[in-house]
Amino acid sequence: MNFTIQQAIIPTLNGYTTVDVQIEGEQIKAISTDSPLPPRGTVIDGRKKLLLPGFVNGHTHSSEMWQRGLIPPYPLELWLGELHEFTPPNPEQIYLSALGTAVETLLSGGTCVVDHLVLIPGKEVETVAAAVKAYQEIGIRAYIGPLIQDQSMSEGIPSGGTHREHEAYYCSTEEVLGMMQTVVDRFHQPEAGMNIMVAPTGIQLCSDGLFAGCMELSDRNSLCRHAHLLETKAQQLLAHEKYAMTAVQYLDKIGYLNPRTSLAHCIWLEDQDIAILAKTGATVVHNPLSNLRLGSGIAPILKYRQAGINVAFGCDGAASNDGQDLLEAIKIGSMLHNITDRDYQHWITPRESVEMAALGGVTGLGMEDQLGTLTEGKMADLVLYDLTNLSLLPKTDPIGLLVMGRPTQVVDRVWVRGEEIIAQGQPTRIDLKGLREALLQYGDWTTTRQSNNIAQLEQHYRQVMDLPK
Amino acid sequence: MNFTIQQAIIPTLNGYTTVDVQIEGEQIKAISTDSPLPPRGTVIDGRKKLLLPGFVNGHTHSSEMWQRGLIPPYPLELWLGELHEFTPPNPEQIYLSALGTAVETLLSGGTCVVDHLVLIPGKEVETVAAAVKAYQEIGIRAYIGPLIQDQSMSEGIPSGGTHREHEAYYCSTEEVLGMMQTVVDRFHQPEAGMNIMVAPTGIQLCSDGLFAGCMELSDRNSLCRHAHLLETKAQQLLAHEKYAMTAVQYLDKIGYLNPRTSLAHCIWLEDQDIAILAKTGATVVHNPLSNLRLGSGIAPILKYRQAGINVAFGCDGAASNDGQDLLEAIKIGSMLHNITDRDYQHWITPRESVEMAALGGVTGLGMEDQLGTLTEGKMADLVLYDLTNLSLLPKTDPIGLLVMGRPTQVVDRVWVRGEEIIAQGQPTRIDLKGLREALLQYGDWTTTRQSNNIAQLEQHYRQVMDLPK
Repeated sequence: MNFTIQQAIIPTLNGYTTVDVQIEGEQIKAISTDSPLPPRGTVIDGRKKLLLPGFVNGHTHSSEMWQRGLIPPYPLELWLGELHEFTPPNPEQIYLSALGTAVETLLSGGTCVVDHLVLIPGKEVETVAAAVKAYQEIGIRAYIGPLIQDQSMSEGIPSGGTHREHEAYYCSTEEVLGMMQTVVDRFHQPEAGMNIMVAPTGIQLCSDGLFAGCMELSDRNSLCRHAHLLETKAQQLLAHEKYAMTAVQYLDKIGYLNPRTSLAHCIWLEDQDIAILAKTGATVVHNPLSNLRLGSGIAPILKYRQAGINVAFGCDGAASNDGQDLLEAIKIGSMLHNITDRDYQHWITPRESVEMAALGGVTGLGMEDQLGTLTEGKMADLVLYDLTNLSLLPKTDPIGLLVMGRPTQVVDRVWVRGEEIIAQGQPTRIDLKGLREALLQYGDWTTTRQSNNIAQLEQHYRQVMDLPK
Repeated sequence: MNFTIQQAIIPTLNGYTTVDVQIEGEQIKAISTDSPLPPRGTVIDGRKKLLLPGFVNGHTHSSEMWQRGLIPPYPLELWLGELHEFTPPNPEQIYLSALGTAVETLLSGGTCVVDHLVLIPGKEVETVAAAVKAYQEIGIRAYIGPLIQDQSMSEGIPSGGTHREHEAYYCSTEEVLGMMQTVVDRFHQPEAGMNIMVAPTGIQLCSDGLFAGCMELSDRNSLCRHAHLLETKAQQLLAHEKYAMTAVQYLDKIGYLNPRTSLAHCIWLEDQDIAILAKTGATVVHNPLSNLRLGSGIAPILKYRQAGINVAFGCDGAASNDGQDLLEAIKIGSMLHNITDRDYQHWITPRESVEMAALGGVTGLGMEDQLGTLTEGKMADLVLYDLTNLSLLPKTDPIGLLVMGRPTQVVDRVWVRGEEIIAQGQPTRIDLKGLREALLQYGDWTTTRQSNNIAQLEQHYRQVMDLPK
């Protein structure tokens, strides 16, 4: 589809200008700041609107939407115990929560979602199929990393020198890798905006063999790599117990880190780890809301930026956030660091935030040549913001207010690969009212639940983490 | 006006129930959980909706809306330099920004705003009149504390042992207090929901005489007291320079602190200060977003709660936040502390957050007997949330998701003093579209501005705060 956006506001180096932008097929064909372009195809009125490249929701778990609001304030290890205790969603629910995740991402400036997708045991491929269907229907660019592990949940908590027995994981390393090959063969279609990534959950629940298999799979199929990394103090302890080195040293030693590897959280790195990460070109995905909610800590993002590490933003799963508003993650993920460094000259500016969210996001996916900036020849993953919405008024600095303010329903139009998938703030290819009605069929507002897992895990956790009994 | 809300969901001690609620005039007349109440007056369908008492936006500066998005990430002292550099808004703008502040507060669950109102020099009474007009028109409950001082801006930065000359403030202590008396005489009408408070900006810019005059005024007219307190490390240093004691010790010594005193920020208190604050019954107003934005620090809210100090939430002015979404302030202001205390048993739960936002807010205004809970006989300042909005789906724990999620346009109806001032998510008594059009008449998106004040203040600030040149 061809179209021309007329007189939209875009940022320049130090200010703003108005431009005409021509889109031809999937690409930005021309951008003119000086003279109007001859309209090609549909004409879009860009006046009183801000045009930016789409952002990347660099780390989420879409199906956690089913438990958002439910889990009380707990640290990660106990939170996980409750998360995995209850009946997993069915494939229809996976489809609905992927749609919900996509809608919230799109309506907060995201055009691409990295879904570290929790799999239904025994229905792993169906889980991926349901998410693929949702993302293709709504039209968002997607990177699905089926969340895999080959060790059972209790192995993720440090032993603290005590002897603990662990159940075997329900399937073997080979079965996990075989399932991944099937998923790649069936769903990996980068030219259509649908990508599979290898995404072992992290060092806390994966064997050497699983990491090796994932690297082999990613090399053979040219896949991006993803994982959680050092989200909690407990994981830092666990790495030392498991490898007698830091988790970053381990991942570097086995060769997991490269410029197409993105790593969620990265809170508990030591200084030597930062240098290693910088050397490998791997990307840090910053999930500030989840990190606060779970009390995991503040990722040292200013240090990463000073070391030259690429940083992107993520919402993390909706049970640890508990939403998918990317503008909220960008805001808090930027200003949170102002309390970690007294020298305000190091603080992240709104323009830097926007660059991290767009270019930083796609760089972690190896797509910086094709996405992430308003550049002729790049793909048309674009967002048009309505600057006349109350939350973006009065007329001040559009990017300053978009990042530091609390924008609400400000996304007017979104294009992915040149196709309009949001118009007048509504998805064009799915029925939002129908999605809400489908979600309403599940659950109940007035029932409360109790977690048995928490009761079982809590005593050991408090002991290992040196908390009062 | 009389009306009956039927079958709304409300929280009980450990879960939820559905109720009918009868409102008669300004009051909650009856609440029935067991059997339907006979409908009186208008019937409101409460099904699929959550009913809560209104929250308090416990600290803001409404006219800062005109600069939201504009000021780069700076610490408070430099940020203030830029804030006060440019032409102040005119009374018409004061009126518009008060309306904007009220709309954003109402649409995020607030029914009451504490406006620490920055005055136009030479038009002090007109400034207050413009804000009063706005709040009366839209119908929100308001506490206006005209922001007063009697020392010039540069005196707010510690000298660090150097000798510095300061300009005299543009009007005398007596003139300031005389203006305040006029404002009280003209606008203080508590029975109509319009209250004037004494609100010296803080120890950093006020003389002993100004504090004494404010206390005398508040005693004579039964006014609430308000002030900023220890927002920055620089203010902590300044208090020691100025009084040879902490700011809390000073305020306690002069008798400023009582159960109707609310204090914004309270970040840099020492342990002895916490005990003093608890003893006086004063309220801490927590402004987490502004505190992050300005790099001021994390207020030790968990310690305050453990010491028995009442805590409320505020958005702070929209130039240091840069919005007025109270649900965002409640979310971040609750989960931010999870990184300050490893023991998750101390973390604030969503139910506690809601209680702080409602009951905590009104307690700081001495209104806990009349507002802040769903109780028969209390005033009907109520909010009805639409639980079928995508951002509050699926059906899980309504308060968990309201606080920890990212609710967007979820406020369906708001009543203040029994009068419906929001219906179907829109203000009933003002024209929102007209407000947006009026705001659009000012400013320009594409001009950038440079601050001369920053250039002048920066070198001294960096030296006093021990930052590299």
